[in-house]
Amino acid sequence: MGGDFGPRVTVPATVEALERYPGLTIKLVGQTDTFTPYLQDISASVRDRLQPVQADDLIAMDEKPSHALRKGQNSSLSVALQLVADGQANACVSAGNTGALMVIGRHLLRMLEGIDRPAIVTAVPTLEGHCYMLDLGANVDCCAEHLLQFAIMGSVMTQAVDGITAPRVGLLNIGQEAIKGNEQVKLASALIRAHGRLNYIGYVEGDDIFAGKADVVVCDGFVGNIALKSSEGVSRLVASRLRAAFGRTWYRRVLAWLARPVLRELGQQLDPSRRNGASLLGLQGIVVKSHGGADSACFGFAIDEAVAEIKMDVPRRISEQLAASLV
Amino acid sequence: MGGDFGPRVTVPATVEALERYPGLTIKLVGQTDTFTPYLQDISASVRDRLQPVQADDLIAMDEKPSHALRKGQNSSLSVALQLVADGQANACVSAGNTGALMVIGRHLLRMLEGIDRPAIVTAVPTLEGHCYMLDLGANVDCCAEHLLQFAIMGSVMTQAVDGITAPRVGLLNIGQEAIKGNEQVKLASALIRAHGRLNYIGYVEGDDIFAGKADVVVCDGFVGNIALKSSEGVSRLVASRLRAAFGRTWYRRVLAWLARPVLRELGQQLDPSRRNGASLLGLQGIVVKSHGGADSACFGFAIDEAVAEIKMDVPRRISEQLAASLV
Repeated sequence: MGGDFGPRVTVPATVEALERYPGLTIKLVGQTDTFTPYLQDISASVRDRLQPVQADDLIAMDEKPSHALRKGQNSSLSVALQLVADGQANACVSAGNTGALMVIGRHLLRMLEGIDRPAIVTAVPTLEGHCYMLDLGANVDCCAEHLLQFAIMGSVMTQAVDGITAPRVGLLNIGQEAIKGNEQVKLASALIRAHGRLNYIGYVEGDDIFAGKADVVVCDGFVGNIALKSSEGVSRLVASRLRAAFGRTWYRRVLAWLARPVLRELGQQLDPSRRNGASLLGLQGIVVKSHGGADSACFGFAIDEAVAEIKMDVPRRISEQLAASLV
Repeated sequence: MGGDFGPRVTVPATVEALERYPGLTIKLVGQTDTFTPYLQDISASVRDRLQPVQADDLIAMDEKPSHALRKGQNSSLSVALQLVADGQANACVSAGNTGALMVIGRHLLRMLEGIDRPAIVTAVPTLEGHCYMLDLGANVDCCAEHLLQFAIMGSVMTQAVDGITAPRVGLLNIGQEAIKGNEQVKLASALIRAHGRLNYIGYVEGDDIFAGKADVVVCDGFVGNIALKSSEGVSRLVASRLRAAFGRTWYRRVLAWLARPVLRELGQQLDPSRRNGASLLGLQGIVVKSHGGADSACFGFAIDEAVAEIKMDVPRRISEQLAASLV
């Protein structure tokens, strides 16, 4: 029911995902009568693996998380997360209210041992591959201890998913000198350094994220969200400039036609919606958050992400690494 | 003396600027004997307009601003700013310690009436032209009142420099809904709305900066610096991907050769160093801050910015608009 478009996006994306993954079953949670218009003409194989689950209530995108939590167990978000908590689903994918997803997720799924708050993490492309950046918006006010926990989770996730033995952990700041930054960041830097089991490389700046200086970039959710969305904005700006530059004269348009596989490849790399699907890390279960503005192709990438995390059994791996790192 | 490279960058950049602007005189402040190696073989016309000014001391890039201020009047930064304060220079350009530049600038040049703290502002490219974004790193901890003052200064600057009557002012946040954001941003939003004389359009997100949703984007210096540097990092990443995509096969390399004016144009647009030179707004004088890592071509852009601001008489215009807006 979530996101800017609700079932109009999520239901077609579900149908397409079921076509992509013959072994997948999806429980579609929400006001099931609103799904019907989008379920015409689907194959028997898809219909068998699509299970509508009724949830009478829904949480608005601008609802306060605390209010959403009090609302109780009948919202589509609560029902979906309860399915994961009960082991009836392996992952929950939502384009809904991020704050509510975090608060209800924490309530129903519980946190991993040693972690206070979930963080939103995603892979960010770099010159050398990718890095993981967290938090991207689950926590707008973090203290230094939370940043330390994000560092641990990010490091452990990189070890688990990418198999890097000692991931380089950087703390996002506005300069590399020790005097730079606000008090929270300076304190977090001291805590992360003191932890002893992290490969902490110190402060990284905004441009270092994409230069691949660190495998894990740690920041609070306010800064992380703005850095990520700014980078998406720049990508769109560049894509637009690229089109304009190649459209300016007839000669250039011919070149663009000749170069269309290159330009298509670049266009895809520049399209931030192709990287949709961020994980809510730190919970005892897989929760993937889609952009609220995602269209159905883009929501499909969030489903892909959930499928990949199920296959890799990410929470169990993190929990094992975490147990080892807390010893 | 400032920046990562000191006179090795600033002196050649000065010589080149004097060649570009036949009406310009530059007072080169610092340990003048360190300039000598870079002043060989310069023309008589340049030599006449280049005036070395001795300053025995210098402020390190990692020195605390409070310490830099106590150090007194003999640092190159203090001497240069004092020249502006005394009317012996029309502007000060520095690649030095940002915090020190701000604190000493505030001490020697004084603030404009109604403004508590200087803010770093620069023009950021958008789909529709550019917007002004502030603060970009002068203030890591801002209260809501400071954000209001940034909004006023940014609005007034846009009116003065771009001639826009009612610039759209947006406050950078992690969502557009009223519930989103941290306490400081929510409070600032209420203050800016209550001011009454600003064309406040509400919250803008990271990607909106580059979409051109606002003429002025207001944020604290920590977030602004990270958003701007992230966008620079993405630009470099895209430029690198562009080169890689066009270099992959012989056919593509031939295309790249045919398309080299387009690619050069894009490369220039994507090169963040071409936008070097941010203004310290709110002081009674022109102060332009260069990236610390600037090379001499890039430091030259900061000199260009100072020359442009002198021509437009930016502080006087801002001060007039400010007086009118505070009535």
